[in-house]
Amino acid sequence: MKKIGVAILGLGVVGGGTYKILTEHREFYRTTQGVDLEVVCVLEREKSRIESLGIPKELVAKNIFEIVSNPDVNVVVESIGGITEAKGYVIDALNAGKTVVTSNKELFCKYSHELERDARRMNVGLYFEASCVGGVPIIRTLLDGVQSNKIYSIEGIINGTTNYILTRMTKDGMSYEDALAEAKRLGYAEADPTADVEGFDAAYKLSILSSLAFHTKVPFANVFREGISKLTREDIDNGRGLGYVLKLLAVGKETERGVEVRVHPTFVKSTHPLAGVDGSFNAVYLTGDSVGEVMLYGRGAGELPTGSAIVSDIIYASTHDGNRYSTFKNTEDADKDVKFVTDFESAYYLRLTVTDKVGALSKITALFAKNNISIVELMQKSLDAERATVVLVTHSTHEEAVKNAVSRIDASDVARVESVIRVLS
Amino acid sequence: MKKIGVAILGLGVVGGGTYKILTEHREFYRTTQGVDLEVVCVLEREKSRIESLGIPKELVAKNIFEIVSNPDVNVVVESIGGITEAKGYVIDALNAGKTVVTSNKELFCKYSHELERDARRMNVGLYFEASCVGGVPIIRTLLDGVQSNKIYSIEGIINGTTNYILTRMTKDGMSYEDALAEAKRLGYAEADPTADVEGFDAAYKLSILSSLAFHTKVPFANVFREGISKLTREDIDNGRGLGYVLKLLAVGKETERGVEVRVHPTFVKSTHPLAGVDGSFNAVYLTGDSVGEVMLYGRGAGELPTGSAIVSDIIYASTHDGNRYSTFKNTEDADKDVKFVTDFESAYYLRLTVTDKVGALSKITALFAKNNISIVELMQKSLDAERATVVLVTHSTHEEAVKNAVSRIDASDVARVESVIRVLS
Repeated sequence: MKKIGVAILGLGVVGGGTYKILTEHREFYRTTQGVDLEVVCVLEREKSRIESLGIPKELVAKNIFEIVSNPDVNVVVESIGGITEAKGYVIDALNAGKTVVTSNKELFCKYSHELERDARRMNVGLYFEASCVGGVPIIRTLLDGVQSNKIYSIEGIINGTTNYILTRMTKDGMSYEDALAEAKRLGYAEADPTADVEGFDAAYKLSILSSLAFHTKVPFANVFREGISKLTREDIDNGRGLGYVLKLLAVGKETERGVEVRVHPTFVKSTHPLAGVDGSFNAVYLTGDSVGEVMLYGRGAGELPTGSAIVSDIIYASTHDGNRYSTFKNTEDADKDVKFVTDFESAYYLRLTVTDKVGALSKITALFAKNNISIVELMQKSLDAERATVVLVTHSTHEEAVKNAVSRIDASDVARVESVIRVLS
Repeated sequence: MKKIGVAILGLGVVGGGTYKILTEHREFYRTTQGVDLEVVCVLEREKSRIESLGIPKELVAKNIFEIVSNPDVNVVVESIGGITEAKGYVIDALNAGKTVVTSNKELFCKYSHELERDARRMNVGLYFEASCVGGVPIIRTLLDGVQSNKIYSIEGIINGTTNYILTRMTKDGMSYEDALAEAKRLGYAEADPTADVEGFDAAYKLSILSSLAFHTKVPFANVFREGISKLTREDIDNGRGLGYVLKLLAVGKETERGVEVRVHPTFVKSTHPLAGVDGSFNAVYLTGDSVGEVMLYGRGAGELPTGSAIVSDIIYASTHDGNRYSTFKNTEDADKDVKFVTDFESAYYLRLTVTDKVGALSKITALFAKNNISIVELMQKSLDAERATVVLVTHSTHEEAVKNAVSRIDASDVARVESVIRVLS
């Protein structure tokens, strides 16, 4: 039986989960996959982590060199995260002829061209299923399941922290602050939640998924990004009244105008399959020219779901001869001849505070008309003696047109735009 | 660039879709997959099909021997369906050293052990993604995406015809007969709908999916099967009132008691992700020990979705060195040491007609109690002067206990059981 030695770098949540799965399932994989996966060494500074996993001392390496020079190591799992140490370690492993399996979205998003160049040169594997949407096999699906399709669009709820917060705000009437505090207590949000709530995490993943879907490197810098930290219960409730659920959506599209990639709060029709994706669950909804709509749903994070993705990659690497890399044009300047669309099309929800005087509403609607924005729904309700709240939803229009209308309204003396939220159409 | 010659056997819905995708995407696959896929011959008796696809005459083979002896053919697509011709053709192709891609669920379900034996002996590929759930990459997911998991259960809506009929009955108040007639008109149901409405089609697919999930051949004969042709609007409406949606569910489980596989109408809680899978859409919801719950959703049939799965298999076969077969123990007697559970556990919905006299209800509830069946909900409503309808939902219990209680009730003089529907718990 083929024997594969595995080294794990970093025994945090993901690395710890990977260790548990590998050790508990060793016999299972021998029987069902015909491969013997053995953890032969680990790299981890925190002694408490090693002890709580019950890892024998002789498996603990002193440094990366001990690992990459160990001939018993075939696969190196990188679950450290970040760039500082991880990047160098992964490059060392590849250059030592080890196959690398990583859960590091930031690393793969920013440096896939460097890493793949090394992997190809050394003819070793480079796998990254665990970098996106935890245990949901979305990378495998894009590479081997729907690769027969021209993908038109990807729409995903790909960050569990923000989805948990928005679900609590929507279903349980919590404020953003309370929901965030709870998410921190439950371990769904970090002490500094910026990466999640401002959409960086989702943008890294969208960059990777869009690169695969559209067959060209989509740089992180090209992802439009807007977080959830300024959302209010009022808008969530207004949207609900109109039949929408608010989600932090990652959207990638390829149209005749080019590639567009964006992460922002989005109202989704309550009948859309993505609308029911609640709590810490994630989902990716994609549309291909032959397959039509496909959705993958599951747990986007957590030690065992993400560990599941890592171990699936290890088994894949161990049971397939030859190495396949990403199917996107992956060089430093791969995006050179791609047109990125920033003036994207969308429908919009807007909330305005309007001075309650004759002609105010007509002034506003005229400003929309001037920008070629047509309105589907409009509700006005009294706010106080002098002001009213106006909520409206537009037909599909252009980002620039809305920006323009908003700045004109804000410059007027009759209204102020309180919030602008895109609507999935 | 690697050049792969493809032969297509049968140009019905699936074969025709495959031909269209391959010819329209040839340049796309050259660019994105680095492989040149060319249809080099087809086998089809009906001239009209060949003409409507615009296939050049010189590509039409006279018989299977012309195809399997053609050195330009690397991959043979079998989209004839059924057993009669298809089985012999597939065996001929494998024995001639051709990789086979099939959409034939009945063939793979019944003869996978024979076909795989030939494929292994000849060291060629045998792919069957298109046999289950159209374009949804569920086979790929089980083989390469969640193979790191012990799978506890699969629950699937895996037949589009019946889901279309049930959705029309549920959402639009149609009778079974009217919904079936409409499904026929729209091409969702065949002239003889038996294979779909009596659950054969779903049972073939469940046999294949369960074999992969539980790593042992699950024979078709072991699948418990009950169709939708006897369902009534009354039960659908009663279920809705209790918060359930009725689906034809395929359920595969592995527990300490053994493997259980069953296809039957099932009430699903309206908040369950499967409850929202409507019309001709399909979905598979699976639970693994590490990944937790994963759902794949998409179009379970149709020329392009199923063609998408076939072409994905062709690309996979063309871009991966070596051949991987099913990961289940696949011999004629593979099921010998598997225990199949027939007395499965489930919750139940029952509708009874009860004689409206003193003590009737108490007699019935006593019969349930005697069989260790405890009742969660019970509703009684008057039917006419002498009779009442009683609807009840049980806690999780055993199939045999319910059968026993039902026959006792039917034998009594106070009530008759009108319907028994399992409830997903």
